[in-house]
Amino acid sequence: MNVNGTHHRTIWMPEPGIVRIIDQRRLPWAFEVIDLKSVAEVAHAIRDMAVRGAGLIGATAGYGMALAAGEARTWEELEALAQSLVVTRPTAVNLAWAVRRQLDALRQHPPEDWKGVAKREAEEIADEDAAFCSRLGTHGLEVIRSLAAKKPDGVVNVLTHCNAGWLAFVDHGSSTAPIYAAHDAGVPVHVWVDETRPRNQGARLTAWELAQHGVPHTVIADNTGGHLMQHGLVDLVITGADRVTRNGDAANKIGTYLKALAARDNGVPFYVALPSSTFDWSIADGVKNIPIEQRGGEEVAWMEGIDSGGILRNVRVIPQTSPVANYAFDVTPARLITGLITERGVLAADEMALCAAFSDCVPASARQ
Amino acid sequence: MNVNGTHHRTIWMPEPGIVRIIDQRRLPWAFEVIDLKSVAEVAHAIRDMAVRGAGLIGATAGYGMALAAGEARTWEELEALAQSLVVTRPTAVNLAWAVRRQLDALRQHPPEDWKGVAKREAEEIADEDAAFCSRLGTHGLEVIRSLAAKKPDGVVNVLTHCNAGWLAFVDHGSSTAPIYAAHDAGVPVHVWVDETRPRNQGARLTAWELAQHGVPHTVIADNTGGHLMQHGLVDLVITGADRVTRNGDAANKIGTYLKALAARDNGVPFYVALPSSTFDWSIADGVKNIPIEQRGGEEVAWMEGIDSGGILRNVRVIPQTSPVANYAFDVTPARLITGLITERGVLAADEMALCAAFSDCVPASARQ
Repeated sequence: MNVNGTHHRTIWMPEPGIVRIIDQRRLPWAFEVIDLKSVAEVAHAIRDMAVRGAGLIGATAGYGMALAAGEARTWEELEALAQSLVVTRPTAVNLAWAVRRQLDALRQHPPEDWKGVAKREAEEIADEDAAFCSRLGTHGLEVIRSLAAKKPDGVVNVLTHCNAGWLAFVDHGSSTAPIYAAHDAGVPVHVWVDETRPRNQGARLTAWELAQHGVPHTVIADNTGGHLMQHGLVDLVITGADRVTRNGDAANKIGTYLKALAARDNGVPFYVALPSSTFDWSIADGVKNIPIEQRGGEEVAWMEGIDSGGILRNVRVIPQTSPVANYAFDVTPARLITGLITERGVLAADEMALCAAFSDCVPASARQ
Repeated sequence: MNVNGTHHRTIWMPEPGIVRIIDQRRLPWAFEVIDLKSVAEVAHAIRDMAVRGAGLIGATAGYGMALAAGEARTWEELEALAQSLVVTRPTAVNLAWAVRRQLDALRQHPPEDWKGVAKREAEEIADEDAAFCSRLGTHGLEVIRSLAAKKPDGVVNVLTHCNAGWLAFVDHGSSTAPIYAAHDAGVPVHVWVDETRPRNQGARLTAWELAQHGVPHTVIADNTGGHLMQHGLVDLVITGADRVTRNGDAANKIGTYLKALAARDNGVPFYVALPSSTFDWSIADGVKNIPIEQRGGEEVAWMEGIDSGGILRNVRVIPQTSPVANYAFDVTPARLITGLITERGVLAADEMALCAAFSDCVPASARQ
């Protein structure tokens, strides 16, 4: 999407041997691109969260393998470099998937062809990510259009939580794809951006990317959405997801479930947008079976921002005498989800609809 | 309650002519008491939020009038001083109520008696506030006891939002009164303290006062409560209220409604604790008729904390390119409230129960 009026992806290869990324550690206070010139630099960028978000981590690993293909002289060396990428963030499934896809492609070629093959494969991985997200936008746009038709003033108010924006993918994003599609198609949208404590991805990343692309939006404390819905100020909620089960239960950033409850209580449609790589077909009951990561309390206790002189500072916002807990995700039960916006269309959040659309989904009735 | 092992109220008169308060602007980073020696100093302390919270503002106004009774030589001077207190925070009903109560008492005495009369009245106002909150504790304790009886490990997990603690009153607090009563009675409690964005009263004040009194607690991001309830980690929710209608709808800090929805979805009892001065008998439908204050966006965009060197700093946490909205309260409909903990007992959140307990409550059926 646009930054300062120019279209950008989150990652690209300006010339062979160079991977260029937006340094997301510096956002929103500074927009800087950096060049990664070795597998070691790519691994460091992933580990240090210069890039983050499922789709973007996968694409970065793909490009990292393009550099590995230039560095390795033997298959053993290539595998070692691949492994150095895989271990950077072991829970990110897209990372291991992209590395495996590259190895599978390279295995069929002699070492002298690796560089060219891996570059093409990396670009395909990135293009596919962008294309899938673009399709989420096409399908989600229809949802927004139908709501716009019912609004006297025409402006559709969308609430979103966390950042499932283009910064988390290669382009478009998941939850933001329908919003960008509507904005670009001239359907007036306004976005309520949840701050998204404790790591503030809404305030820092979603707000920044919407501002850069020129989409009208307002940042709110996470506590606010229920009040807005009670007073008719939200027309629909769209969030992303970190994992969605066969039954349609959706794990996403902590606090998503509370917004889904408020949406249900006020008759506001609640959608989850995701590329199909986010489904976990092996699990049915998300509340019971999706493990929820607990992270360090310092993410809640400390906040980063800039002072009035523009200097980046960390401040403690919770007294040291109090313990802090930090649950990273929660699970929104399928019963609260109006629909799942996928690259294959808007689907009901239930096993029958999902297994009809995706062959990887094996319904319980067909299992051993 | 206790601070560093010693019992404190939030306000007291150590000797005639001196009103001593805890400077709440400095909490939780420093515990400092300051002496107010004139009506002007009292007015400044209220306006500058060195004291805050409905009960405490009322008590402070009462003590302020005790100083006024020493400063004024004529009834006109006394009324002018009274007015200088009333205008400090025009929306705080307890403030005007305490000033009026003092004027009504003083009117019946010659100027030479004013000082003594006003001091006694101020102490009565403060004592009443503490006594009412203490009774909330007595009634709420029974709720906690009955839940403790059902818990195998005996520890009752209470979730609370914002600060309706003793710092907001003279002692005990409203939402915290049952918690302190349980803790002091040896019923094991643990409190989940919502950070309470944007002003962080949970993280700054509730966490601090629970730590000082030795009550086990954990601070969490506001987004967390739903997940905790889904997993059986919350036995009850108790919040305070800023205004409760005749029908039992409760306005409280923004985000309270979201916790009430999660409590209902997970079968967790949800209580609102309030002294009867918080009822607004003139209103029935809270969602429709309680006006919700919108405050400046800088409260969301900026955060105060201490850096690693212990220096208090303000940092901007939302980029300047994004607009911010700041709704201060929301309304929890009575249908989501298990009970109202009042000084007259735990009451159902409906007009019949409230009008049976409080004579000021005139049911709709009896109105003209």
